[in-house]
Amino acid sequence: MHILVTNDDGVSAPGLLALAQEMRKLGKVTVLAPDRNWSASGHVKTMDRPLRVREMKLADGSSALTTDGAPSDCVALALLGVVTEKIDLVLSGINPNANIGHDVTYSGTVTAAMEAVISEVQGIAVSLDSKPGHGELDYGPAARVAARIAAQVIRNGLPEGVLLNVNVPCRPENEIKGIQITRQGLRVYHDALDARKDPRGRPYYWIGGDFPTGVAEDGTDFGALAEGYVSVTPLQLDLTAYRAVETLKTWKWKKNK
Amino acid sequence: MHILVTNDDGVSAPGLLALAQEMRKLGKVTVLAPDRNWSASGHVKTMDRPLRVREMKLADGSSALTTDGAPSDCVALALLGVVTEKIDLVLSGINPNANIGHDVTYSGTVTAAMEAVISEVQGIAVSLDSKPGHGELDYGPAARVAARIAAQVIRNGLPEGVLLNVNVPCRPENEIKGIQITRQGLRVYHDALDARKDPRGRPYYWIGGDFPTGVAEDGTDFGALAEGYVSVTPLQLDLTAYRAVETLKTWKWKKNK
Repeated sequence: MHILVTNDDGVSAPGLLALAQEMRKLGKVTVLAPDRNWSASGHVKTMDRPLRVREMKLADGSSALTTDGAPSDCVALALLGVVTEKIDLVLSGINPNANIGHDVTYSGTVTAAMEAVISEVQGIAVSLDSKPGHGELDYGPAARVAARIAAQVIRNGLPEGVLLNVNVPCRPENEIKGIQITRQGLRVYHDALDARKDPRGRPYYWIGGDFPTGVAEDGTDFGALAEGYVSVTPLQLDLTAYRAVETLKTWKWKKNK
Repeated sequence: MHILVTNDDGVSAPGLLALAQEMRKLGKVTVLAPDRNWSASGHVKTMDRPLRVREMKLADGSSALTTDGAPSDCVALALLGVVTEKIDLVLSGINPNANIGHDVTYSGTVTAAMEAVISEVQGIAVSLDSKPGHGELDYGPAARVAARIAAQVIRNGLPEGVLLNVNVPCRPENEIKGIQITRQGLRVYHDALDARKDPRGRPYYWIGGDFPTGVAEDGTDFGALAEGYVSVTPLQLDLTAYRAVETLKTWKWKKNK
């Protein structure tokens, strides 16, 4: 079992180290991660510039690869041959904030796992539901949860075209109530525009506002976390709104109406 | 009717001008688009740096706004208040290549329309199915198709949480056979790694390879284009793989198994 570990926070992030260390108990691990933070970067394929890859050491002295590409580029580079040995499973994380609801299309953590699935390799994204302004985070519980889930994926195999989006409550291990299989819930963003003037009097804008909340419905990712459960959401890359297809077919599409 | 027009190719792209000109026949148009090309950039929310917005003129002399943010930032900026008048509809495009199958998660054109839907504003992404190595493109037919579809959206209203992903065949108007409501098909990527050495002998990598193809199944975006039809795919932001939820619930999730 050869496992690629990547993330969107950069190769030096503590969440990646915790994840890589737990994954080594399940198989051989290769780390290839961005050399900087790519949070909220979305699903990127870098084609307009060449990418560098270099070797470095993680904080525990183990070897890793890092690149100036995006998280999904890391997966593409590895699967296209920068890593020569066949990769069986891609783990992305551990992100220091939850990736739930609409976050999934923005999330570098999740889109790295998407990139794996597009290349027909199994992918799991792992995030920790920490609150804003947290101090130093303990990624140990989330890393061990990730290992349990990865072990199940190795045993059972994911359905074709499906990745797992895992979110772990930020609490001591004995206070995590268990694992719930969930659907993607509704994120509620509280973005606000912060318009400022620079020292020369010209305007500039920050996209700011409060931390997003969510709708804690039963059966959703947000609902599971709110009750202290690990949320495991199977995601697919088919975004078709099937229920809308029939509605749209009833519209008057003829040119002369 | 107040329509925001944006794109991912940059404010000076001819596809944006053609789209804005046709949209003016349906209502008031405001253009806010990136100051550079953001192709394959994915769904970006820029929060780590402030964004500039400045006024400029399009090639037809009309006013436009441009920013150093990503396509989805353009939509966020406009809806958060950089554009003060309420926006009813967001059009993104016209992209000079099709955005079908898995392209939709990478596509700046599509993710701009997603950003509108997240803010509960209707969104339509428009792309032209040109082939690689095309000469100068005629965006007129695609722009007029976009106007017909936008008129239907204005009349009927899109179902909640749904955006339209429109792809138009690149052929003369009288050779476009009509409009098909489709589902997202399968893209087949032919990415390959091009490993090179720089003048100092250090390796670098291009993500290259052949232009992606697709599986021309009946009822899909790719299938419609292959037969000369406009493809209109309703997309949603719920990526849950509902069929996989039940499968995953049968896995052994207890700690002591």
